Amino acid sequence: MGPFERGDYQDRLAKTRTRMADAGLELLLVTDPANMHYLTGYDGWSFYVPQLVAVTVEAGDPVWIGRGIDANGARVTTFLDDGDIYGYDDDYVQTPDRHPMNFVADVLRGRGWDRRVIAVEMDSYYFSARGFEALRHDLPNAAFRDARELVNWVRAVKSDKEIALMQRAGRIMDRVMDVAVDAVSPGVRQCDAVAAILQAQVAGVDDFGGDYTSIVPMLPTGAGTATPHLTWTDEPFREGEATIMELAACHRRYHCPQARTVFLGRPPQRLADAAAAVVEGLNAALDAVRPGVTCGEVEGAWRNAIAKSGLVKESRIGYSTGLNYPPDWGEHTMSLRPGDRSVLQANMTFHMIPGIWQDDWGIEISECFRVTETGAEPFATTPRQLFVKG
Amino acid sequence: MGPFERGDYQDRLAKTRTRMADAGLELLLVTDPANMHYLTGYDGWSFYVPQLVAVTVEAGDPVWIGRGIDANGARVTTFLDDGDIYGYDDDYVQTPDRHPMNFVADVLRGRGWDRRVIAVEMDSYYFSARGFEALRHDLPNAAFRDARELVNWVRAVKSDKEIALMQRAGRIMDRVMDVAVDAVSPGVRQCDAVAAILQAQVAGVDDFGGDYTSIVPMLPTGAGTATPHLTWTDEPFREGEATIMELAACHRRYHCPQARTVFLGRPPQRLADAAAAVVEGLNAALDAVRPGVTCGEVEGAWRNAIAKSGLVKESRIGYSTGLNYPPDWGEHTMSLRPGDRSVLQANMTFHMIPGIWQDDWGIEISECFRVTETGAEPFATTPRQLFVKG
Repeated sequence: MGPFERGDYQDRLAKTRTRMADAGLELLLVTDPANMHYLTGYDGWSFYVPQLVAVTVEAGDPVWIGRGIDANGARVTTFLDDGDIYGYDDDYVQTPDRHPMNFVADVLRGRGWDRRVIAVEMDSYYFSARGFEALRHDLPNAAFRDARELVNWVRAVKSDKEIALMQRAGRIMDRVMDVAVDAVSPGVRQCDAVAAILQAQVAGVDDFGGDYTSIVPMLPTGAGTATPHLTWTDEPFREGEATIMELAACHRRYHCPQARTVFLGRPPQRLADAAAAVVEGLNAALDAVRPGVTCGEVEGAWRNAIAKSGLVKESRIGYSTGLNYPPDWGEHTMSLRPGDRSVLQANMTFHMIPGIWQDDWGIEISECFRVTETGAEPFATTPRQLFVKG
Repeated sequence: MGPFERGDYQDRLAKTRTRMADAGLELLLVTDPANMHYLTGYDGWSFYVPQLVAVTVEAGDPVWIGRGIDANGARVTTFLDDGDIYGYDDDYVQTPDRHPMNFVADVLRGRGWDRRVIAVEMDSYYFSARGFEALRHDLPNAAFRDARELVNWVRAVKSDKEIALMQRAGRIMDRVMDVAVDAVSPGVRQCDAVAAILQAQVAGVDDFGGDYTSIVPMLPTGAGTATPHLTWTDEPFREGEATIMELAACHRRYHCPQARTVFLGRPPQRLADAAAAVVEGLNAALDAVRPGVTCGEVEGAWRNAIAKSGLVKESRIGYSTGLNYPPDWGEHTMSLRPGDRSVLQANMTFHMIPGIWQDDWGIEISECFRVTETGAEPFATTPRQLFVKG
């Protein structure tokens, strides 16, 4: 049943219902696997087929609906009673003539929920346009609304138990980054370095292990550092080239991401200068963090600090993070960027990653932290610097 | 630019256009990352934000549209000219007041494609219901159609180059399964076994490395074997328990999945009997494979072979596989199940995985193979058996 207790889930459901009532929503269909996990404990790599948790605005246990062969997974990982777990027949899976959402509509009708104001997560990865059409077709008397990121916003402020999981992820992250900096060397194949990184991520530490991260190690190298989301090849690292390592550690689905950059040999002056500016900007932005400040104001502190460096940074410098499933460890709520007026509160958690990508080079140095009563507390301890080797 | 040449992409685009013309489609918006990769070479873990490749029914290079910071990735990994690569501003990312599909609509209008019959992949993971609404709102003169799995179906028959990549994945898979069977032992933490598996997956072999698999190692153990999609914990493996290992190897995004089951100690008779029946059924189904036979007929051979065992298997026993990105290595086209009338052709590739899951136990023994001119040729060589240790 995961690291949480029944009372934790009840508390999360109550907060969710308050937001539902405020928005006039009577039934919420939760398809984001992180949100499903948050509200019920459901876990497993089954989100590649449609599945959801249905939450009514009135009190009561949620309902899990998913593929029949995953219903046992719901029994093993959630607190739900058998009568609240519905598995669809395998004939619904990946077939042109019916859709799992047809089954979902039947269940909702059976529960008497087919005339409700139903909110769906319109921009979540695992709620498809076709699924939405099937639901609308089968439930003509329901009024559909976009839930937006309703549960994601409930997740934004972490409980102390959640913070403890992220602190564990931070401890694993320290070891992962040590291994990564060590592994990137001239002549070593990129795949062998990543193999060592993955090994460290999941072996974790003596006291506790690691979970899979929502994004695999991203390791652009050489000219590839001009773009952030390349993974790896089996080519060797080369003397005279930089490698950006955007990694994470995860413990029981809670993440601590971190990026560092390694240069093999003597770095060009522009890279050394950029590293100094990025670290200065990162420090200034972390110094600006405290409850009551907005996300936009935190970005402003970065922007002021790097102004004299000549570096230009158009994209956001960070986002809310914590609990998640692939393909993203970001929570899709707050971004550290101009105009984001979200107000920081204690126990919100962010990944601040002011990546710089130019035409043919780039650099990333990042920090994952929680907002404390007075400032920012990073989860990991690797020094904020460009690592120069050899 | 990946392992393929310009001519390979042209061939794939031509096949796609033939299907488009047959279906009366004028513009295809490809959002499935495997399909994007297949048609252009685009690669990178950027599918967590909206991105697509647009293909007109007339000849000409496709157009890539994605996040601005990923445009360099498109320049590095595709054959596309700069003028065919469009990056949206970061203000579109994960924000309530606009959506990247608003930008996409602007590009399509700029190209004069806003009055076309536009096909979208309605059931792909990375084309959201909200994105579809934004597109429809901004392009009121377009006629939208569901492309279904149009490009997935083009992918169903592999070229010899693609088969060669899957054969490489098979060579890695042999090593991965060796490591996995070896790693599962009493007292070993599950996370440490998975760390070794991940290391082997990505280190690959001396000649070539491994890529990330579209699904992480799934390792249900003990009573968890009653459900297929659990991952791992940091608990130790225990004497007297079974562990199902559903794994894969991947080389340049091409997969060879494989499942085996390990028992620590003396297996209960029902598990040994089930193993014998599953292997017999698997062999019978593989024997039934040849061009001209339907997917349903292959499943029938399995069903006949296990009839006397008393085992019941309601879910499909396999699916088309090959090129893919998370969260699934299945291609969402053919399934080995009753009623699937898809006809096998040479160089189609499948994962046959007749998993048995009962109330509190289960077993998986699987094989990934290609259809040859005369039969089925597995990509990996690990013996088809229940592994009994200790």
